[in-house]
Amino acid sequence: MEYYKDEVKTYLAVDCIIFGFYGEALQILLIKRGFEPEINNWSLMGGFVQPGESPDEAASRVLLKLTGLENVYMEQSAAFGKPHREKHGRVVSLTYFALIDSKEYQHILSNEYQANWFPIDNFPKLIFDHEEMISTAKRLLRSKAALYPILFELLPEKFTLPQISSLYEAVYEIVIDKRNFNRKLLSSNLLIKQNEKDKASSKKGAYYYVLNKDIYKDKIMSFLRYLPSWSAQDMGI
Amino acid sequence: MEYYKDEVKTYLAVDCIIFGFYGEALQILLIKRGFEPEINNWSLMGGFVQPGESPDEAASRVLLKLTGLENVYMEQSAAFGKPHREKHGRVVSLTYFALIDSKEYQHILSNEYQANWFPIDNFPKLIFDHEEMISTAKRLLRSKAALYPILFELLPEKFTLPQISSLYEAVYEIVIDKRNFNRKLLSSNLLIKQNEKDKASSKKGAYYYVLNKDIYKDKIMSFLRYLPSWSAQDMGI
Repeated sequence: MEYYKDEVKTYLAVDCIIFGFYGEALQILLIKRGFEPEINNWSLMGGFVQPGESPDEAASRVLLKLTGLENVYMEQSAAFGKPHREKHGRVVSLTYFALIDSKEYQHILSNEYQANWFPIDNFPKLIFDHEEMISTAKRLLRSKAALYPILFELLPEKFTLPQISSLYEAVYEIVIDKRNFNRKLLSSNLLIKQNEKDKASSKKGAYYYVLNKDIYKDKIMSFLRYLPSWSAQDMGI
Repeated sequence: MEYYKDEVKTYLAVDCIIFGFYGEALQILLIKRGFEPEINNWSLMGGFVQPGESPDEAASRVLLKLTGLENVYMEQSAAFGKPHREKHGRVVSLTYFALIDSKEYQHILSNEYQANWFPIDNFPKLIFDHEEMISTAKRLLRSKAALYPILFELLPEKFTLPQISSLYEAVYEIVIDKRNFNRKLLSSNLLIKQNEKDKASSKKGAYYYVLNKDIYKDKIMSFLRYLPSWSAQDMGI
């Protein structure tokens, strides 16, 4: 028996907001769209959900195809589905945000798709509602990173305390009180200090740290059991 | 020119996870499904996205039709789209969670749709992946409520401090240190003390409070500018 046959079907797409971090800047990976309509215009990486795959799988496939990357930190952002968001047909898009260390993956930039990293606050005009998709994903990234230490996905395996604070400053667009920030960070037991120093960034040098992966995994996977942190003293940054 | 015509279209649905709070229990609103397949089985409230509407509009329409409620706090939860999540056809569902004061809206229970409130930890078996939809929405509610004071949407206009802590205890499934919690709460300037007392719940009575709507709106709408709160001392509840 066929159900639902009087219902209207819709094109279903995925679009990936890929965040990277390089030096002190938050970046976003964009491509020149490879198919009509809007061919050759700057766009997020996207594609249509295929019959045999879930939207999550579609997003992973798109990311793999366009960047060669697998097992990247990725999660659902929002659905975009206003009736006329594309004038060429009704397409509802599910967006995903991904976090990668863009310094390590400069070489992934595919010539075929003309992929390119841009600073998060200075990228070319994008097709359709892709700029709104980025704003929404950035807001979600901020919320999520306020509760879970996911921003480490943007750093190389070994990193310094100044790198972490630069990263948080870039994501939240704030100036951080480093002493207080470092103190909180070290008290979290998330970081393991290395003997080696990064001497490229300052004369004195800064010790490298690596993530304590057990604690990280525990924190990132643990079911959220939070008391509200929205009271006055927490709000005032 | 018609684009995308080689792509496959999909049925697109919305499902609403409607949370309520009554007495000291978190509740969820369920209905007996009114159409085939799975007619008369317990289900979330849902429906298909129509050609002229966005998914957000579809969710509002479904909520209005089944409960008579408008202007309810509602936001996107997750997309569910595994290929065989329904054996009757490929349907991708966008879920939404809504927050309402279920005590005030007992009368919305529609006989036509056999809507009914259930405790969040004790409801009948649901169709398809609707139980997973609820778990995901609950996790999202906890995250969101850790950053924004959205749980007040579940309370009546006048409420007491014990009611608020009961609410947080129900949502996070924890026992709260009331003194500390009340102190944080009052320091947030979110609450305005009334002269009147609720004497139904205890001999001594508990003062009523109302929300300071300006501050609430500001906090709930303000772009998130948070420092990470995942350091050790915050995690250990």
